[in-house]
Amino acid sequence: MLCARGGWRALRRCASLPRAVRLRVREALRAREPAEAVRVQGWVRSVRSQKEVLFLHINDGSSLESLQVVADPSLEKRDLTFGSAVEVQGKLVKSPHKMQNMELQAETIHVVGPCDIWSFPLKMRERHPLEYVRQFPHLRCRNNTLGALLRIRSEATASIHSFFQDNGYVHIHTPIITSNDCEGAGELFQIETSREEEDSVEKSHFFNVPAFLTVSGQLHLEVMAGAFTHVFTFGPTFRAENSQSRRHLAEFYMVEAELSFTESLQDIMQVMEDLFKTVTSTVLSKCPRDVELFHKYIAPAQKGRLEQMLKHKFMIISYSEAVEILKQAPQTFTFKPEWGCDLQTEHEKYLVKHCGDVPVFVVNYPYDLKPFYMRDNEDGPQHTVAAVDLLVPGVGELCGGSLREERLPFLESRLQRLGLTDAYQWYLDLRKFGSVPHGGFGMGFERYLQYILGVDNIKDVIPFPRFSHSCLL
Amino acid sequence: MLCARGGWRALRRCASLPRAVRLRVREALRAREPAEAVRVQGWVRSVRSQKEVLFLHINDGSSLESLQVVADPSLEKRDLTFGSAVEVQGKLVKSPHKMQNMELQAETIHVVGPCDIWSFPLKMRERHPLEYVRQFPHLRCRNNTLGALLRIRSEATASIHSFFQDNGYVHIHTPIITSNDCEGAGELFQIETSREEEDSVEKSHFFNVPAFLTVSGQLHLEVMAGAFTHVFTFGPTFRAENSQSRRHLAEFYMVEAELSFTESLQDIMQVMEDLFKTVTSTVLSKCPRDVELFHKYIAPAQKGRLEQMLKHKFMIISYSEAVEILKQAPQTFTFKPEWGCDLQTEHEKYLVKHCGDVPVFVVNYPYDLKPFYMRDNEDGPQHTVAAVDLLVPGVGELCGGSLREERLPFLESRLQRLGLTDAYQWYLDLRKFGSVPHGGFGMGFERYLQYILGVDNIKDVIPFPRFSHSCLL
Repeated sequence: MLCARGGWRALRRCASLPRAVRLRVREALRAREPAEAVRVQGWVRSVRSQKEVLFLHINDGSSLESLQVVADPSLEKRDLTFGSAVEVQGKLVKSPHKMQNMELQAETIHVVGPCDIWSFPLKMRERHPLEYVRQFPHLRCRNNTLGALLRIRSEATASIHSFFQDNGYVHIHTPIITSNDCEGAGELFQIETSREEEDSVEKSHFFNVPAFLTVSGQLHLEVMAGAFTHVFTFGPTFRAENSQSRRHLAEFYMVEAELSFTESLQDIMQVMEDLFKTVTSTVLSKCPRDVELFHKYIAPAQKGRLEQMLKHKFMIISYSEAVEILKQAPQTFTFKPEWGCDLQTEHEKYLVKHCGDVPVFVVNYPYDLKPFYMRDNEDGPQHTVAAVDLLVPGVGELCGGSLREERLPFLESRLQRLGLTDAYQWYLDLRKFGSVPHGGFGMGFERYLQYILGVDNIKDVIPFPRFSHSCLL
Repeated sequence: MLCARGGWRALRRCASLPRAVRLRVREALRAREPAEAVRVQGWVRSVRSQKEVLFLHINDGSSLESLQVVADPSLEKRDLTFGSAVEVQGKLVKSPHKMQNMELQAETIHVVGPCDIWSFPLKMRERHPLEYVRQFPHLRCRNNTLGALLRIRSEATASIHSFFQDNGYVHIHTPIITSNDCEGAGELFQIETSREEEDSVEKSHFFNVPAFLTVSGQLHLEVMAGAFTHVFTFGPTFRAENSQSRRHLAEFYMVEAELSFTESLQDIMQVMEDLFKTVTSTVLSKCPRDVELFHKYIAPAQKGRLEQMLKHKFMIISYSEAVEILKQAPQTFTFKPEWGCDLQTEHEKYLVKHCGDVPVFVVNYPYDLKPFYMRDNEDGPQHTVAAVDLLVPGVGELCGGSLREERLPFLESRLQRLGLTDAYQWYLDLRKFGSVPHGGFGMGFERYLQYILGVDNIKDVIPFPRFSHSCLL
């Protein structure tokens, strides 16, 4: 038996170079002191061969910036090209260039994996358009913009978890496969086993009932809100809307939170605003260069907008006020604004502009427009529910939330009218056993990224552009 | 227009009690000083009415422990029962009881939501078996054991994210809907739109090609490992195995990581061991009471096992050694151990016991047993690949990993023999453009929870027991 670490030498695939300290590019760039024996591994982003000296730039994904390697031209090899993977060993020294802190003086350069540059679709020193790199889902992450996006996405994800964790929320993995459709809105994906012999018979349902991919974890979070005062989920949600739009995905991520013992919509809006600002500030401070890339080349106006947004309280207007503003607008809309009708994207954009290009909460929507679970405001004659949407410049609706109808008689009569009493018996049940005022919201994660980075097409903020039909990986 | 917070008073649903400081139960229990005007909200876990005094226990999910409320019997009401939701206002004082730090002297008790105790399936002061509460997916979280589980699950989730974040990994949301099946192993769920009119025609595929729920994010992580040296994902994965076992779920969570520039399987095992120990230590220190509940009532032996596990290095044995150990075992197995055959659960359990009831890595499995992407060890005559499984006491296989075949010729010939060249052209492609030695692993999150808590049935470590066919929510 190979005991613990003892037997390791036997398992090593090869005796490699004498051990120098392995540093990531980010660590090397940020080093405060020179170091004698350093090893850096990564992919070559540029090769520049001069008479006296060979320059390389090495990137390993740990930062947008690459590490400059300075070497004797004798170290150049045929397969040391753009895109190849290398391990460089040498001395880390202060760089004479103002733009960088450190550089690596190479003693050895080992090409770990060569790159067939003729068939490699990315080219050295070319700023490829996002549409171009989207064609190569398996190579796209080697592009600077996508690399930056993925680091930002990762940082934002971590920050969302921390925000809720720090505020005492319990994280719940709500089911992906479910038999409820949350609000009857949006096309569902149905799932079946892929075994052919069962395809035709009705009883083939794997779960005995039709099963779908979740459109929202809200109802499941509401279950949890009967035992925990603060819960959240952050996972994939699905809509089978066959749209090739720049704003929709079949599979996207959603942050959802539910709070018990709420007193008003303000409780919900406060969390939405805090979440939004905290995550954005964190991303801006943790990935300044990555964000800068977007604000420089993709959406030059976005930087100022974000700074504005972080400095000011979000606006709040009621749906009725919004309709009045739209009616008095000097411009003509494709959809005429009318009390009782949904706000269209064109309306949302106008409202945001009208309010000074800052995020705007619109509250108290018509009762008849909204799903059964939203809390009746018991007002009139313009009957509303305690719902809220957050509209942001450029993107439109980013978050939606509401107080939920916690009162059994209200919910019962509404479900009865809709013929949904049987399907939602368990949901009614929750109102019989210690029901409390509660509410929550959801925020589309990709829309959020689109907004802060100013990215036009939502397919450019996901790791794999899998929903452009040609390149599902 | 209601400007910012200005218009709030108008939107408030009701003017509530004069404002006392709102505390969560956890905060109240941990308070260092008494406090005059405190508000606590939660659900009643017990009511005990004596002549002179009324005792309540209030729980709000923030901790396993409830807060004791002491009140004048005049505050008792008919609907102040077990399961009802209350808001209690009063003074927080030092408790005369040794078992608790603080208690609340009630001035007012408001029943926010009564509970129909006759139809409520949970009963006061009863320790319901897990099988019993599993029947009530929408009410189960109000049970102590499930509450503890959900806090532990949340803490473990946060700790997994922190572990990778702290070690410089980039988090990747790998696709849930995919057209690849990763290893051809395991039954897949296929997805379709639920629109009936499209059901019959072949071209109805929403994505133009058949699409499935992911069984693993590994191949997608490998894509990312071509630009980032450290990536991870933590999300739902699916297997359509129609088993009613205590160890399998159709939908479960998996942590997966991929590392570039690996030198041996040891790199991978080191991360597996570090992850496992870090997350377990964090959970033990952050949720001591919750874990204690399991170790006291569900799995009394588990506490000692975990302490052992944290103190020692994990063992490492090769597959060939494992087979030798099994062949020499005094016991008879249902499946006869033989080089070239899969290790069965009975074998795994024996090996773990044989090694002293500690986690054991088994490395270097037969080439013909393992999927195409595992790295050929080029040994013989017993031809193996650089694969590793982590076996733990009680559960068996918990993690699996391998070095991946980064060498184009090896991969090409293997895929050709399997007739998979066309399907994995993009995977071959990755080996042409700066391919590096890399490897990774996956850990089933529910199995992990089963192990540390000693829970026998995997359905008891998920928020909703949705795969017991009767109660898909």
